[in-house]
Amino acid sequence: MPPQGDEASRLIALLTRRGLRIAIAESLTGGLVAAELTSVPGASAAVSGGVVAYDTAVKHSLLGVPSELLAREGAVHPEVARRMAEGVRRALAVDGRPADVGVATTGVAGPDPQDGRSPGTVYVGVSIGDRAESVELALRGDRAEIRRASVIAALVAVLDRL
Amino acid sequence: MPPQGDEASRLIALLTRRGLRIAIAESLTGGLVAAELTSVPGASAAVSGGVVAYDTAVKHSLLGVPSELLAREGAVHPEVARRMAEGVRRALAVDGRPADVGVATTGVAGPDPQDGRSPGTVYVGVSIGDRAESVELALRGDRAEIRRASVIAALVAVLDRL
Repeated sequence: MPPQGDEASRLIALLTRRGLRIAIAESLTGGLVAAELTSVPGASAAVSGGVVAYDTAVKHSLLGVPSELLAREGAVHPEVARRMAEGVRRALAVDGRPADVGVATTGVAGPDPQDGRSPGTVYVGVSIGDRAESVELALRGDRAEIRRASVIAALVAVLDRL
Repeated sequence: MPPQGDEASRLIALLTRRGLRIAIAESLTGGLVAAELTSVPGASAAVSGGVVAYDTAVKHSLLGVPSELLAREGAVHPEVARRMAEGVRRALAVDGRPADVGVATTGVAGPDPQDGRSPGTVYVGVSIGDRAESVELALRGDRAEIRRASVIAALVAVLDRL
């Protein structure tokens, strides 16, 4: 169980106060961002849900990331992170209404490189309104540390943009 | 970051050895089952991904749980757990091929009751081949303890059926 971090509580409180709902798309973090947010009591007011798109093909099939982009750049790329954040808002639509905020992680947790990228190369995507941005991280540490740091970076990236 | 439990390592090893891929549908665990499985290095050989269906409507829209069932019984019900486990195999299909194994969690983490069920009431669904089963849990503890125990129960439920 991840410790309930301050960032998660702050983000849930902020989203709830503004009446916004968030959707989460995760590759290397594998569910940890969603788990961290839903560790906060009352999270259901602000969390629609998420997609763990661990298999690259799922980034296309469920999140709508273009196959050409994935074939050309691989899964670890800033544009992939942005497209995942946009796509998960649509995937988690309720009654035709997309989620208000999307956040996404893609990167290399290690221990082995992936798609020619070294462990610690991580992109966080954030989609709010009609804007989508990505943040590049160069993390050090083992698999667990890289995943953990990616979770915090994702939460902070959303907090900074709300 | 959840500690990499023995169950997760055993399940990834077993799935990999048999060439099977798993998909995970989570409600109260909110991504923790997927996170636990993907904490294991090499998990990408066996994990397609998952859906965190935190909002009840997402259990229908992404996982295909019948709306009538959700309206009649609420989200915390053994048949909902089974349908989630079946549905996530289809949702995570790659090239038209559903995931081989589906596992799902739905229940009440607390602190408040939900749909008339008390905290600690949890159902785990497992779908393998054309069989789908559910396991009922009556857990004690706080929100974090209930979620953590549900993760372990979900992994064990799959291990017991492979």
